Amino acid sequence: MIKQAEIQLPPFGRGYHLITDRIVDGIGALPEQGLLNLFIKHTSAGLSINENADASVRQDFETILNKLVPENDPDYTHTMEGPDDMPAHVKASLIGASLTVPVKNGRLDLGTWQGIYFCEFRNKAGRRRITATIYS
Amino acid sequence: MIKQAEIQLPPFGRGYHLITDRIVDGIGALPEQGLLNLFIKHTSAGLSINENADASVRQDFETILNKLVPENDPDYTHTMEGPDDMPAHVKASLIGASLTVPVKNGRLDLGTWQGIYFCEFRNKAGRRRITATIYS
Amino acid sequence: MIKQAEIQLPPFGRGYHLITDRIVDGIGALPEQGLLNLFIKHTSAGLSINENADASVRQDFETILNKLVPENDPDYTHTMEGPDDMPAHVKASLIGASLTVPVKNGRLDLGTWQGIYFCEFRNKAGRRRITATIYS
Repeated sequence: MIKQAEIQLPPFGRGYHLITDRIVDGIGALPEQGLLNLFIKHTSAGLSINENADASVRQDFETILNKLVPENDPDYTHTMEGPDDMPAHVKASLIGASLTVPVKNGRLDLGTWQGIYFCEFRNKAGRRRITATIYS
Repeated sequence: MIKQAEIQLPPFGRGYHLITDRIVDGIGALPEQGLLNLFIKHTSAGLSINENADASVRQDFETILNKLVPENDPDYTHTMEGPDDMPAHVKASLIGASLTVPVKNGRLDLGTWQGIYFCEFRNKAGRRRITATIYS
Repeated sequence: MIKQAEIQLPPFGRGYHLITDRIVDGIGALPEQGLLNLFIKHTSAGLSINENADASVRQDFETILNKLVPENDPDYTHTMEGPDDMPAHVKASLIGASLTVPVKNGRLDLGTWQGIYFCEFRNKAGRRRITATIYS
């Protein structure tokens, strides 16, 4: 059985945000057993799984990814949409647009310290759309 | 219901290539609702989702990934297959071998600006094989 | 049809380890056709697909990822769990917590040179748990 839902995120600031609760609310009742796929329909934002407790982890993600893919490199050619645009595209492919999480005993089968991250790579972005697909 | 197809890509030059149309042609009719998984059966190429409009984005991907994982670092030990080989393996794991995309209303549920990238990390590669699996 | 199994990995040293055989043993009989999803329930370890033959590839992975996300950067704020902790979180998101591999003719449909990597990013970690979900 397949169930799909569209989850709309409000505009978030640039950075890494815990959205586990929003996702759980957005998809509704879960089957006993299955898989949840989340797919973000944008090319300058991403989805990831990481530490759900300490905000300093999410702050350091921003620091580290900015060092990995710096802005304003004179070798970039795609610069018309601003200095944060091309790095945002690359970060999106490094982090990924899609997540698959198991569903077990009617719940997301996340580890104790795992949460779902929404990663906003643009300085000023609007709402973002995620398609959630549940298989059971 | 499951349907599988093998999609063969012709040799592409090193770089990032839009293959959305090839994938859509290769998988044939899509179900109303489901998921498409694409899996590339190689360790020095990858699949990603990114911007489908401006070729300069794909050019800058090449620039940025080459800076991230440079060639000819004297610390590398796996050098027998050429200077592009070991960086190609690492890029393949950073970008990923597998993509999962939702299917909705009989079409791939991609965002307006999203396309499927085939990422060729070797200087001279042959044909590449992708296994497509559709769940509905 | 869905089948789930929990696979427990013993403590591995920091680095990249081939676990294809452990996974195949842990999931038992495979269907003729389907998909296998592997999900690691931790935020400082990852799963990837890469070269299955030459141990020097896995050694260079360690070298390259350590250069990508160095330890002891004075800009990090999440430092209480040791210098390897924050870099481990970022590596986990770059490599990914989840893998989806097609199943074809009753076997994992991996390419000739592909194996499943378990990536341990911490210096001293305990056992790690993976949820395997098979769709057919």
